[in-house]
Amino acid sequence: MLDLAIIGGGPAGLTAGLYATRGGLEEVVMFEKGMPGGQITQSSEVENYPGIVDIVSGMELMQEWPKQCMRFGLKHEMAEVVRVSRPEGLCYKIELSDGSSVGAKSVIVCTGSTPRRAGFDGEEKFFGRGVSTCATCDGFFYRDKEVAVIGGGDTALEEALFLAKICSKVYLIHRRDEFRAAPSTVERVMANEKIFPVLNSVPVEVYGDEMGVSGLKVKKKESGEILDLPVPGVFVFVGSDVNNGVLKQEDGSFLCDMSEWGEVVVDLAMRTSEEGLFAAGDVRIMAPKQVVCAAGDGANAAIGAIAYVEHLKREKLC
Amino acid sequence: MLDLAIIGGGPAGLTAGLYATRGGLEEVVMFEKGMPGGQITQSSEVENYPGIVDIVSGMELMQEWPKQCMRFGLKHEMAEVVRVSRPEGLCYKIELSDGSSVGAKSVIVCTGSTPRRAGFDGEEKFFGRGVSTCATCDGFFYRDKEVAVIGGGDTALEEALFLAKICSKVYLIHRRDEFRAAPSTVERVMANEKIFPVLNSVPVEVYGDEMGVSGLKVKKKESGEILDLPVPGVFVFVGSDVNNGVLKQEDGSFLCDMSEWGEVVVDLAMRTSEEGLFAAGDVRIMAPKQVVCAAGDGANAAIGAIAYVEHLKREKLC
Repeated sequence: MLDLAIIGGGPAGLTAGLYATRGGLEEVVMFEKGMPGGQITQSSEVENYPGIVDIVSGMELMQEWPKQCMRFGLKHEMAEVVRVSRPEGLCYKIELSDGSSVGAKSVIVCTGSTPRRAGFDGEEKFFGRGVSTCATCDGFFYRDKEVAVIGGGDTALEEALFLAKICSKVYLIHRRDEFRAAPSTVERVMANEKIFPVLNSVPVEVYGDEMGVSGLKVKKKESGEILDLPVPGVFVFVGSDVNNGVLKQEDGSFLCDMSEWGEVVVDLAMRTSEEGLFAAGDVRIMAPKQVVCAAGDGANAAIGAIAYVEHLKREKLC
Repeated sequence: MLDLAIIGGGPAGLTAGLYATRGGLEEVVMFEKGMPGGQITQSSEVENYPGIVDIVSGMELMQEWPKQCMRFGLKHEMAEVVRVSRPEGLCYKIELSDGSSVGAKSVIVCTGSTPRRAGFDGEEKFFGRGVSTCATCDGFFYRDKEVAVIGGGDTALEEALFLAKICSKVYLIHRRDEFRAAPSTVERVMANEKIFPVLNSVPVEVYGDEMGVSGLKVKKKESGEILDLPVPGVFVFVGSDVNNGVLKQEDGSFLCDMSEWGEVVVDLAMRTSEEGLFAAGDVRIMAPKQVVCAAGDGANAAIGAIAYVEHLKREKLC
């Protein structure tokens, strides 16, 4: 029986493990089927993680974290969790893809979210090297330069407005003839002199070289005409998938309360609606999707888990 | 007129400044009358800030932050803010101790909290070198060692329980004959075989050498007897003062909703009850009081401030 199971090995999961073990929990396992580090390891440049002054790649940023976070007894199990449930009473059951399972007194879910791809040529190849899904993270690298934004929903338009404050020009490419965002947001976008909507159009190919992206080809859907936009940055906002699968129960319901977008509902202490179950990082509601925020969540959740497990032990429950 | 005024220069304020300026806000000023860095600079050892693997002092931890966070245009004004108000309409007014004032479209309050001192000899001298006010931060440095906890309220007892999981023995020194904490917490403390309550007693002197603390002298109030506890660590939990003074208005009310303990009420986006006013770090409700959490708050609040100011500008308000 584990004191704590951490599902996911990004900044939130690693920091939760650091705090939980350093705070005296025993038998703390972080389940992460791949290498720890999370989504940020796909970024080529990070300069906004406080305390790391140099511009580093996401890989470099996360390089030392496992060593530091596992120094106090955190174990990394390279296994895929398929489900977290609470079959009876208080204990949690962690089911793995190999059919085995393990019990846990408390659980922190740190499975993140996955930005969807738009599906054009070169998108994957240049991901993290000119193709981005985060304006807050990467917008500044294109200061006073031209960029393209793909998408037509709230996020795409809000991120276009964000980029318009930094970049010289923002092409906003959308496959339909109107945006799906809130009317007030659409109004602000249309009034912004730096944003150039390119409607009824789809991206077909991003191109460049070893240095990164140098342009994006866009096809006008009606005429078939190809526009060649000389942009060094392409931001894709076509939705994201919250990685909430482990919380889905056999009957299709979720183990705890979820938002309408499938994010885990938490309070300021990262507590979910189930006692002893916490969520941290991009999987939770209103996540700012920044490494430092996810790490803060992880610490926060671990502090709560420590108190919860101490309480369980005292009451001889679970 | 500033886009954003940041009040306080600890991890929350610095990170807010980094994110706000890098996100395109102009005229962002961080008001901090002293050197930036915050309360953590009083700690002699930090090993739980993710990404900084070596054990460093709080000073060392924060050394590079101002350089990094001010790289994108954040200005540091060495001035003391006495009040933040909203005299009319939407704009905020930042009043300084020299009698001058400046307007701001949005404000992030990051003024932290100050742990109270118990007032015994050597407490100040050994603060950060054996005397601590944070078990989560410093408990691990006393693994399998004996420590003393000063206090009798909820925090003191909860921190004693936390320390009991790590340390070999926890002396719990309280000046009264019973604890003021919640009955269930008192029960858990009394049942914990590692915790030794020392009631009706007050600490008189902590002593040691250049290496840190080697013991604490405690006086039994009734008999006057002096107990000499050979502890290398003393944890003081006699309350803390939330630095909320800047939010107090001339009529004694607060600018925004506060908790019964004087902390700023925020939601998951660090928004207060006043639009455009955010709080981050230890000044807010339910703050985990960790550097990484405060930094996460700062980033989170800045992202909200950017969107808010963009909206104000578009609407030509303020």
